[in-house]
Amino acid sequence: MQTTTLINGAPQDKLSVADRGLHYGDGLFETIAVVTGQPSYWQQHLARLILGCQRLKFPVIDIDQLTAEAKQILAEKKSGVLKIILTRGHGKRGYQPEKRPNLNHILLFYPNTEVMPAAQAESGVKLTICQTPIVKNPLLSGIKHLNRLEQVLASAEWSDKNIYDGLMLYQQEYAVCGTKTNLFIVKDGILITDPLIEYGINGVMRAEIIEQAKASAIPIELRPLTLDECLSADEVFISNSLIGIYPVTAIVKHTYAIGKITKTLQTLIASRQCLGF
Amino acid sequence: MQTTTLINGAPQDKLSVADRGLHYGDGLFETIAVVTGQPSYWQQHLARLILGCQRLKFPVIDIDQLTAEAKQILAEKKSGVLKIILTRGHGKRGYQPEKRPNLNHILLFYPNTEVMPAAQAESGVKLTICQTPIVKNPLLSGIKHLNRLEQVLASAEWSDKNIYDGLMLYQQEYAVCGTKTNLFIVKDGILITDPLIEYGINGVMRAEIIEQAKASAIPIELRPLTLDECLSADEVFISNSLIGIYPVTAIVKHTYAIGKITKTLQTLIASRQCLGF
Repeated sequence: MQTTTLINGAPQDKLSVADRGLHYGDGLFETIAVVTGQPSYWQQHLARLILGCQRLKFPVIDIDQLTAEAKQILAEKKSGVLKIILTRGHGKRGYQPEKRPNLNHILLFYPNTEVMPAAQAESGVKLTICQTPIVKNPLLSGIKHLNRLEQVLASAEWSDKNIYDGLMLYQQEYAVCGTKTNLFIVKDGILITDPLIEYGINGVMRAEIIEQAKASAIPIELRPLTLDECLSADEVFISNSLIGIYPVTAIVKHTYAIGKITKTLQTLIASRQCLGF
Repeated sequence: MQTTTLINGAPQDKLSVADRGLHYGDGLFETIAVVTGQPSYWQQHLARLILGCQRLKFPVIDIDQLTAEAKQILAEKKSGVLKIILTRGHGKRGYQPEKRPNLNHILLFYPNTEVMPAAQAESGVKLTICQTPIVKNPLLSGIKHLNRLEQVLASAEWSDKNIYDGLMLYQQEYAVCGTKTNLFIVKDGILITDPLIEYGINGVMRAEIIEQAKASAIPIELRPLTLDECLSADEVFISNSLIGIYPVTAIVKHTYAIGKITKTLQTLIASRQCLGF
């Protein structure tokens, strides 16, 4: 059987029940698309992981070791998802972290997840609007930490298989993101997305889209967008590392055509092909 | 060797790495004082756990089974801490929970933790003020869920062993709670504590203190209290299930005498002795 889980480099799938990731969500994760056995945007995922470590005051991680283990787990693999979980390790009871914790790192490979699937990238997807709100939390914004109950509760709000994701609102007014995606709209030729300063996750694909838009002279504004703006947009799309860009064809009863800027950005992202270590 | 960990009833200390408690903090916990082998406020802890299950849309838990397992793990034990962790179990990849999850429940016994220690209950403790803010989150307020990064980051702010806890503020103005305690002040004979509607954890000991105050005709107000009110209070104390009530003798440089109402409530709590299943 192929290895699909490494805990601190060892092939095993059970973790000590003393781990602070379990007790407090005291950790970080990355979800990485794997295509032909190669990780997508590996350096960008590492950079966000390192940013998260700084924010949570984790000691410096050994990038060479992590890379070697990722190569080990991806050997003889084709496509799927590589998830990295990094926790503050075991500790004595209580919230207060140890001064010099021994982090635990876990690599998981999910072979049966389709990444960058063509069908929905062409046909587009439908969104609902979640009641579970986005909460302002500047200390934790941007990073991909393990405290994800908001996303869990929001994504439990619908069961219709035709709905791909749910929009999450800040103060019932601002459309910030999906539960598992970043959100972009196009209005009068301008690409707009939330700057995610006080909430949200800075998606690796989101950063890539912003970079590609700038390089291609597509006008872009990073500012909060209201739900009304979103509903009356010319184009809407969502993104994450696993799907790339999905055009949004409906938010509840508001429908959208798949627009030119969405398609242009899909082509730019597809041509970039940032694969490998 | 005595059993100190049960996972779903079996003596083991390793959990599947697929558990949603680890991936998303998708779960709940209770921390229960154990005195002469008996849990304190068992029914109250169970009630909060059940409330948490409703809030997170967990299926109904088997209280008889949980009680039987708690009896098993506490057999031949003396004093310490019993921790119960309840997670939404394993699941497929992604935030969206399964319709009918098989919850995982974990019981841990920590034998070397002193509970309700007399020394600090008499001498009082010192607090600092944390920079890490309390964030408003009505959906998760009150319950003891596994998303505790705020408390972790706040409690990492000090290392002075003479500081017992740190006050956490909402909007830099309101003194809500400690990182691991609830907060009470006394001003002009009135006991005041935050109602914890939009943030915080409804402590089992906090509820008990409020009940005892009401039964003893101690005037009590449940309302937000500003840091200024807290600093100019006549008495300040903190509470949780493991310590009972600790008088606060200092918040940074503001000092307090240990007051009459604090001592009265300590006596009332001590006399209640809510032990056993």
